[in-house]
Amino acid sequence: MFKAIVSADTLGDALDSVSVLVDECKIRLEEEGLTIRAVDPANVGMVDLTLDAAAFESYETDGGVIGVNLSRLEEFVGMADAGQLVQLELDEETRKLHVQIEGLEGTLALIDPDSIRQEPDLPDLDLPANVVVEGADIARAVKAADMVSDHIALGVDADEELFYVDAEGDTDDVHLELTREDLIDLTAGDARSLFSLDYLQDMNKAIPSDAEVTMELGEEFPVKLHFDIAEGEGSVTFMLAPRIQSD
Amino acid sequence: MFKAIVSADTLGDALDSVSVLVDECKIRLEEEGLTIRAVDPANVGMVDLTLDAAAFESYETDGGVIGVNLSRLEEFVGMADAGQLVQLELDEETRKLHVQIEGLEGTLALIDPDSIRQEPDLPDLDLPANVVVEGADIARAVKAADMVSDHIALGVDADEELFYVDAEGDTDDVHLELTREDLIDLTAGDARSLFSLDYLQDMNKAIPSDAEVTMELGEEFPVKLHFDIAEGEGSVTFMLAPRIQSD
Amino acid sequence: MFKAIVSADTLGDALDSVSVLVDECKIRLEEEGLTIRAVDPANVGMVDLTLDAAAFESYETDGGVIGVNLSRLEEFVGMADAGQLVQLELDEETRKLHVQIEGLEGTLALIDPDSIRQEPDLPDLDLPANVVVEGADIARAVKAADMVSDHIALGVDADEELFYVDAEGDTDDVHLELTREDLIDLTAGDARSLFSLDYLQDMNKAIPSDAEVTMELGEEFPVKLHFDIAEGEGSVTFMLAPRIQSD
Repeated sequence: MFKAIVSADTLGDALDSVSVLVDECKIRLEEEGLTIRAVDPANVGMVDLTLDAAAFESYETDGGVIGVNLSRLEEFVGMADAGQLVQLELDEETRKLHVQIEGLEGTLALIDPDSIRQEPDLPDLDLPANVVVEGADIARAVKAADMVSDHIALGVDADEELFYVDAEGDTDDVHLELTREDLIDLTAGDARSLFSLDYLQDMNKAIPSDAEVTMELGEEFPVKLHFDIAEGEGSVTFMLAPRIQSD
Repeated sequence: MFKAIVSADTLGDALDSVSVLVDECKIRLEEEGLTIRAVDPANVGMVDLTLDAAAFESYETDGGVIGVNLSRLEEFVGMADAGQLVQLELDEETRKLHVQIEGLEGTLALIDPDSIRQEPDLPDLDLPANVVVEGADIARAVKAADMVSDHIALGVDADEELFYVDAEGDTDDVHLELTREDLIDLTAGDARSLFSLDYLQDMNKAIPSDAEVTMELGEEFPVKLHFDIAEGEGSVTFMLAPRIQSD
Repeated sequence: MFKAIVSADTLGDALDSVSVLVDECKIRLEEEGLTIRAVDPANVGMVDLTLDAAAFESYETDGGVIGVNLSRLEEFVGMADAGQLVQLELDEETRKLHVQIEGLEGTLALIDPDSIRQEPDLPDLDLPANVVVEGADIARAVKAADMVSDHIALGVDADEELFYVDAEGDTDDVHLELTREDLIDLTAGDARSLFSLDYLQDMNKAIPSDAEVTMELGEEFPVKLHFDIAEGEGSVTFMLAPRIQSD
């Protein structure tokens, strides 16, 4: 059993953070709220989403797992105007999801969860550096790097107490530094890893420009990006595997 | 003889309602105003437009029929800024239309009316159900149906006193209901017909979102959509033939 | 040596006026400011740009010439938000240009100036007619001509004291007249020349709609378009060669 009412904006933002990585996913319906974990087909980018029951206007379930086509569900939710509510209800018998928005009723076929890629475990990495930045700064770094390269290095200089971004192209380079003053918070520790820009661009699409994003970084380690959604009643963690640096 | 001055917005809106269906049309120049009737090449969608002489700043004609390429004429009219006036004048000798907008003068070659598809007659159908909705509701129904199907069913449930829209895809469905309260007016009578979504989408493009649209519906009958333009000094009627329902 | 600070808007507007014609150009670094002269590969359109030292927040150079890829430099400058400053600094040794914008540092490889097309001389033509129009009027003329033709005639009727634009298509024509009243200034003299619309469209992209544009015109002669940038602390002159009129 699953029946819930939620603002279309809240649900849409939550789904966006998953759909930037995968087309289909399992949604775990738990008493405390929804959770989604997914990894992209190349095993490079992962997402771990929770949307607490408190983020919903109403939320009832006795547990279960459903498989959804994310772009279909997002399209349905996108029919709502700003501020409108979406009602979701699972039809156990037909394995369909009923989506209701102000007189509009959609029925969405679910996907057999067993046919969907297994959910990843996002390992606890205990990384040495911890940086808290505004979402807008990540957007700026990604845009700048994109001018010159397909890769982006994220690092922390522990001595200088600064977070930096490097992108090196064949002829042109870009370098961005954010000092302790520019950052919301910094736990310095030497860190530098190279990442595929494509993935970070996709993740950036789901990060609100005014979000406080906590980045955990290490030396040639994955980066974790963590931010709240639904006014704190939900959260997203992205994890992105590093590229081997050729030099 | 034909010479008229009209606001670019009024003329543009009027032409749009025809150009969503056909590329060329005949314009009948009558003492009381302009009229255009046209049917698309597949004989599925028809339009009947009148733009009264009162909708013009000035309007003079001794009658006649001209053939126009709609996109060319719309492009010329589109040169006007919001609120600017367009002057139209027929040159009988050269069979060209002079279009004047604030110092800009265009000359548009006309098309031999005999080379244009014959004008259709929009039959009087005396349909059992009559629904008056806002243009925005049609837009919403069309957008919702488009998520799941190429077809859209429009119907009235006389007992429940409601207007409904159904679209059924291979796996997903959409259903929209507007009760008497949601509607501007309703003359209930059982009705349900299936239509090609493409045509309704095209017609919808010409319907202002705040227009009061009168829909006449029957059982497996064409639908008629009627709305005013030019602040009531003109009107558009679309007629759309039904698809045979396969089930 | 070259080191300068300038508002991103000022620099961006200046570069745009050159990049509508060429991909690469030489920038002459002179004590009084920057100058760029360039001609498109077909030798049809030329640009002569000056950006005075006074247009910069700070400006230091001991002279020299650098070659730049315009779209790369524009992309770097485009990283700035409205109102932000861009710092440019030439690294003589590596022949790279350092571009700095609020914590973001880019390094742009320069191009060997000798590998770039030679700079043209914009001849002094002493043309008989001189018209001063708003940039918006040029935009309107170009848009109107584009509806019917690939060419545009610009002319002055000395007797009628008016500036006109003609475009003749296979079936449709466009004619635009601006009288002395519509113009900012007019020095009448008979003039009429035909131009490729493509070039004028490109030049128009770099002309602010509220700019005062001085046009110098003759009989089958090039047209010169002159306007100020950087609030008068810089200027752009376009010169466009005429097409041979076939009739």
